[in-house]
Amino acid sequence: MTVFHSSFSIQSDRRPTFEDVTDRVVESMRTSGIKEGILLVYSQHTTCSVMIQEASDDVNYWGTDLMMQDLVNVLEKIIPTCRTEGQYLHPGPKHIIAGSGRNEEAWWSLNTDAHLRSVLMGRSVSIPIINSEVVLGEFGRIYFADFDQVRARQRTVRIQIVGE
Amino acid sequence: MTVFHSSFSIQSDRRPTFEDVTDRVVESMRTSGIKEGILLVYSQHTTCSVMIQEASDDVNYWGTDLMMQDLVNVLEKIIPTCRTEGQYLHPGPKHIIAGSGRNEEAWWSLNTDAHLRSVLMGRSVSIPIINSEVVLGEFGRIYFADFDQVRARQRTVRIQIVGE
Amino acid sequence: MTVFHSSFSIQSDRRPTFEDVTDRVVESMRTSGIKEGILLVYSQHTTCSVMIQEASDDVNYWGTDLMMQDLVNVLEKIIPTCRTEGQYLHPGPKHIIAGSGRNEEAWWSLNTDAHLRSVLMGRSVSIPIINSEVVLGEFGRIYFADFDQVRARQRTVRIQIVGE
Repeated sequence: MTVFHSSFSIQSDRRPTFEDVTDRVVESMRTSGIKEGILLVYSQHTTCSVMIQEASDDVNYWGTDLMMQDLVNVLEKIIPTCRTEGQYLHPGPKHIIAGSGRNEEAWWSLNTDAHLRSVLMGRSVSIPIINSEVVLGEFGRIYFADFDQVRARQRTVRIQIVGE
Repeated sequence: MTVFHSSFSIQSDRRPTFEDVTDRVVESMRTSGIKEGILLVYSQHTTCSVMIQEASDDVNYWGTDLMMQDLVNVLEKIIPTCRTEGQYLHPGPKHIIAGSGRNEEAWWSLNTDAHLRSVLMGRSVSIPIINSEVVLGEFGRIYFADFDQVRARQRTVRIQIVGE
Repeated sequence: MTVFHSSFSIQSDRRPTFEDVTDRVVESMRTSGIKEGILLVYSQHTTCSVMIQEASDDVNYWGTDLMMQDLVNVLEKIIPTCRTEGQYLHPGPKHIIAGSGRNEEAWWSLNTDAHLRSVLMGRSVSIPIINSEVVLGEFGRIYFADFDQVRARQRTVRIQIVGE
């Protein structure tokens, strides 16, 4: 029985960013040598998610899969993009002061929508590894999502495998 | 330490299908001989989910648990059933052409609602096994959900256990 | 390779209760001696969830983190608080009779909103343990949530770790 870990970086944009990370996950599984087990794809960022979904084939003018844009449109209805302070309760005054102590601009915290979208969609997926295959079915692809729209940033995706 | 895998099939219907798979999961745990560990119940289909919830006792005329029908009613408000192309961005023209190459009918792809509901609800549950028990509390039941309303299909549910 | 389990209790309130359990999770990891693996934080209750999110610093008059109150406000829009029977399909008559046989008051079952919020938000989080660290990033905190608003109760949070 072995535990294997790897990670890689994603460059996000100033709109909801979706990146297909399937090939990098499968590559990690191969590197690990683990043939049977549970594989966790995990985002440590509180405005990000990891999801499994079918690829759309078609993309919009921004290069976003149409299915993922449909998802953003649904999320926009229930958790609208934060456009100014006061739209959501968070961030409050103590949060802004704490951020200021870390040399953060106040507007960096106007991403409450992204925090809420992340917690609703979940931060990881767990996938069985069976006979050296990451079991995704015929159409399943693994997407890393960054819902933060206030800043473009480098993000970390982690893969943890327990198995043999 | 052992990794154990089993799977079984579910026949879905042309409405959101919920099937209580708790007994089959517990049976798998017993077959595995694993007494302490983590158990993953996983759907490899991109319009399906796995969830834990209380049984309703009551069902509607279709045989659906009232709690699950309440869930469908909530989902219908935020992700309405797809009734025609153009209601959602997906499927776009390339997706229809790709499906055509696999001898799929175009209307098979009018299940964008099911894809979005699946990704919102999640594709798996992880449950601790403690002292040879799948820990669900007094009322927890494990449900497989197929949100696809365009076709009735055979679906696969996978159980993966890592433990000892 | 080891499997480690621990649990602790949370006292919930008659409003959505959010409790930061990060320190207790980290303490469990230390007690386990496991340095690399997958850690599962799990709620066995069908009206509860476990989530990872940033701390708000600010709280409202009830002591609830502003971010969590923003989440409750979003959930209230899509799954309104259940105020009387008939608002949701569940609980139906058989469920009330079954509860009566367990000496439950009928109004205890008017928590359909909490069941639906729990299943939407998920019942557990899986987190990698890397080099003896529960990997949460700079800002991630682990919250236990009890969405049940009809009764204050003692709740159990379980931690299961598989690793070495």
